Amino acid sequence: MTLIEPRLSRGLRDLLPEDTLARQHMIDVVRGVYELYGFVPLTTPAVEYLDVLSGSGGQEIQQSIFTVSNPEEEQLGLRFDHTVPLARVIAQYKELPKPFRRYSIGPVWRADKPGPGRFREFVQFDIDSVGVQSELADTEIICGICDSMEALGVSNYQVRFSSRRVLNLLLAYASITPERSVDVFRVIDKLEKIGPKKVRLELTAGYTDESGDRITGLGLTAEQADQIEKFIAIRSPKRADVVKELGGTFGSVPGAAEEIAVLEKMSHNLDVAGYRDDRVIIDLSIARGLAYYNGPVFETILMDAPQFGSVFSGGRYDDLVMRFLGERVPATGASMGVDRLLAALRALDKIRLRKSTAEVLVTTFDSSMKDDYTAMTFELRRAGIRTELYMGTDRAGKQIKYGDRLEIPIVLLYGPDEKAKGVVTIKDMSAGRARAQQLTGSRDRWLQERPGQFEVPRAELVAAVRKLLAEPPAFTERT
Amino acid sequence: MTLIEPRLSRGLRDLLPEDTLARQHMIDVVRGVYELYGFVPLTTPAVEYLDVLSGSGGQEIQQSIFTVSNPEEEQLGLRFDHTVPLARVIAQYKELPKPFRRYSIGPVWRADKPGPGRFREFVQFDIDSVGVQSELADTEIICGICDSMEALGVSNYQVRFSSRRVLNLLLAYASITPERSVDVFRVIDKLEKIGPKKVRLELTAGYTDESGDRITGLGLTAEQADQIEKFIAIRSPKRADVVKELGGTFGSVPGAAEEIAVLEKMSHNLDVAGYRDDRVIIDLSIARGLAYYNGPVFETILMDAPQFGSVFSGGRYDDLVMRFLGERVPATGASMGVDRLLAALRALDKIRLRKSTAEVLVTTFDSSMKDDYTAMTFELRRAGIRTELYMGTDRAGKQIKYGDRLEIPIVLLYGPDEKAKGVVTIKDMSAGRARAQQLTGSRDRWLQERPGQFEVPRAELVAAVRKLLAEPPAFTERT
Repeated sequence: MTLIEPRLSRGLRDLLPEDTLARQHMIDVVRGVYELYGFVPLTTPAVEYLDVLSGSGGQEIQQSIFTVSNPEEEQLGLRFDHTVPLARVIAQYKELPKPFRRYSIGPVWRADKPGPGRFREFVQFDIDSVGVQSELADTEIICGICDSMEALGVSNYQVRFSSRRVLNLLLAYASITPERSVDVFRVIDKLEKIGPKKVRLELTAGYTDESGDRITGLGLTAEQADQIEKFIAIRSPKRADVVKELGGTFGSVPGAAEEIAVLEKMSHNLDVAGYRDDRVIIDLSIARGLAYYNGPVFETILMDAPQFGSVFSGGRYDDLVMRFLGERVPATGASMGVDRLLAALRALDKIRLRKSTAEVLVTTFDSSMKDDYTAMTFELRRAGIRTELYMGTDRAGKQIKYGDRLEIPIVLLYGPDEKAKGVVTIKDMSAGRARAQQLTGSRDRWLQERPGQFEVPRAELVAAVRKLLAEPPAFTERT
Repeated sequence: MTLIEPRLSRGLRDLLPEDTLARQHMIDVVRGVYELYGFVPLTTPAVEYLDVLSGSGGQEIQQSIFTVSNPEEEQLGLRFDHTVPLARVIAQYKELPKPFRRYSIGPVWRADKPGPGRFREFVQFDIDSVGVQSELADTEIICGICDSMEALGVSNYQVRFSSRRVLNLLLAYASITPERSVDVFRVIDKLEKIGPKKVRLELTAGYTDESGDRITGLGLTAEQADQIEKFIAIRSPKRADVVKELGGTFGSVPGAAEEIAVLEKMSHNLDVAGYRDDRVIIDLSIARGLAYYNGPVFETILMDAPQFGSVFSGGRYDDLVMRFLGERVPATGASMGVDRLLAALRALDKIRLRKSTAEVLVTTFDSSMKDDYTAMTFELRRAGIRTELYMGTDRAGKQIKYGDRLEIPIVLLYGPDEKAKGVVTIKDMSAGRARAQQLTGSRDRWLQERPGQFEVPRAELVAAVRKLLAEPPAFTERT
């Protein structure tokens, strides 16, 4: 028999229990925020027609689609985001009530070059409002991002927004044609990463970077680059100041006043809703790479982990349904990079990691007492206490070690002696671990003291476990 | 511009918000049960190597794999279940603690012929215990199935179990070779569906069915069919009776006593854990179609909706890791057909359907009062009340209709009159609907009475909404 090597293709990975629990917790928290906002969930299949998928994303996206074959040999692929399937759904189900404010959670696939932290299958959590022209919808997306961050325990973050329409006016003013605008946006968007000097070079003649690679310039004139610099030089930690300066410098550009007013309205709405300058700023260098944005754009930076880039980004895209219906449907939304944010939260130690879901491990070291163990386990479960019944046939020591390794807070020991006495031995593992650390090197004392270990009457087991789980942990954190 | 038709390939479907909410609720409930049991979640990618996927399932499964292409042009496919990826993980991560008791939730793909209720992408919820030889593991899977059904509000269900090893002995006794056993199991498994007469014909010479199709027989002799009939004739609503009769009739077959003892032990464990004959029976005709089962097998029937077939099935499969490691690893588990069970629960009216997550809709009919609406919305949200801010620019009537259509229980009206008076108008939609039914045909009276509509001081809005949401619904169910 030839053995098959257990393995995954590059860019794919398993999430073992600890990581899945953390991710699930994160998703549940953010889901709670958006349900608080009254968003509703939508599920679309992973597999879509290629023509449906590839319309919007540009060549870059098309090349990164995983293609799929079905028995009918149709042209199919795995979705690369949740936005295109949303646009399809909007076009397909005309009866959907509008405004349609939905969230979608699930994996997306991109056959890009994998790297550290870059996977080919990753989870996105998207929220979008469809059918709403008002800037209130954009504002609400930003508020939801803030609430999500705070619900996840992150307080030091910044949501930054700008508007593609304001940027477009700037480009028109600098005599840059609309076809070139997305290229220019991409370069501007690199400001934080590469600095203003390189941005200017890339906008104009290009440059050779440290590694000797040639970065082609866009060929703008010095005057054009000046205009762009003048624009992105408008910076302030106060939203009102940015709006004011923008109006002062560019207010006379035809059509500009109206677009600047959108930023002003969003800023005002944010104030009314209670989201101040300390966590949401206007940053005119935010352009976002995607071609389809045509209004406000936003991104979210964890200030203590900026190296992860934006963890929650989006913008307005009123034209996405166009290719299905031939008409505009206003839409705005954002996408949370679940796996990227999870990595950032882990790096910041902001997420509680659990190896087990169990609060109690019932050991089963005496084979003559199986029924007692089973009955005890189900008694605890019926009381709502998460309990694992040890299923192996190992000795007590190994079973306790298993509980310790999985960080299960309480381990129960029940042998013939305990049964005769009518008691159960409870091991409070965290108390035991903490005391053991204090007693390092003094094994005799540890054995004598048996820290965190005590007996309770069998009839009072559920009450005793409940009490212990409700107590604050002894020294280290238990739950 | 050529429009692209918004559409899905056959066998694929979207789950609109109402269905996604119902499915998510179901998944959350069952997840709660298995976390109560101390199972931990595992996530594997959708895309696997074809050789990893196709080892176990037999030709039938191989033909139904959706193949996938990546830039490296490897042989890949979408997973068709969660069991094979689990086996790969067990082989790949030798450091995983054993017993490894995990659950997995997610879509699986099968390119079979689609039909009513048969989709090519559907969600499975799997639980498995790996590394446990003891029949306690099988028992616990059955207990978890029972608890899941009850947590979902289903009381009239039946879990039925048998053992492949007992069936194998029977086959040996009837001189049926092991290679033929899976074919024989498949026919026996049809007993409930086609009845004993057709089962006998299919075991022997075959028959022509009502539609004129020829059903090929397996060619067993009459004596062999007699033996099988004698075996599956052993039926009783009491587990102990089945065990007893089985022992009496087949106990002398070499090796039988030991295997019958497994069923007896499982039955005993179920009794100890509190799962009696009223919901778990031994049914010797349960064989399950999959080739890899080699011990206890089980299935779950909703007694009020038997037409949906088994909604939660599984069994022991100790050989699945064999093709990766060349050694046996004991494993047992079950898979819940999430979408099938959801369809059954809907048919039984056992699932609460919600069109919205919002409890309150803040209407926004006066454009001069946008800030008031925004402030009110965020005040409610900060109080933990799920609130939607109406985003369109429609008149009050249309906004109320939107709330009614989405069955949002409370709609708030706040115009210049209310503001001047310092009040908010609350519409209790369910009370209003109920009263409106009583007043059918009497529009005048309805307008005069305005059922379910009343004013509260603006400062007491949160308290008033909380009180209303906590009240039992007036006439119809509200939440």
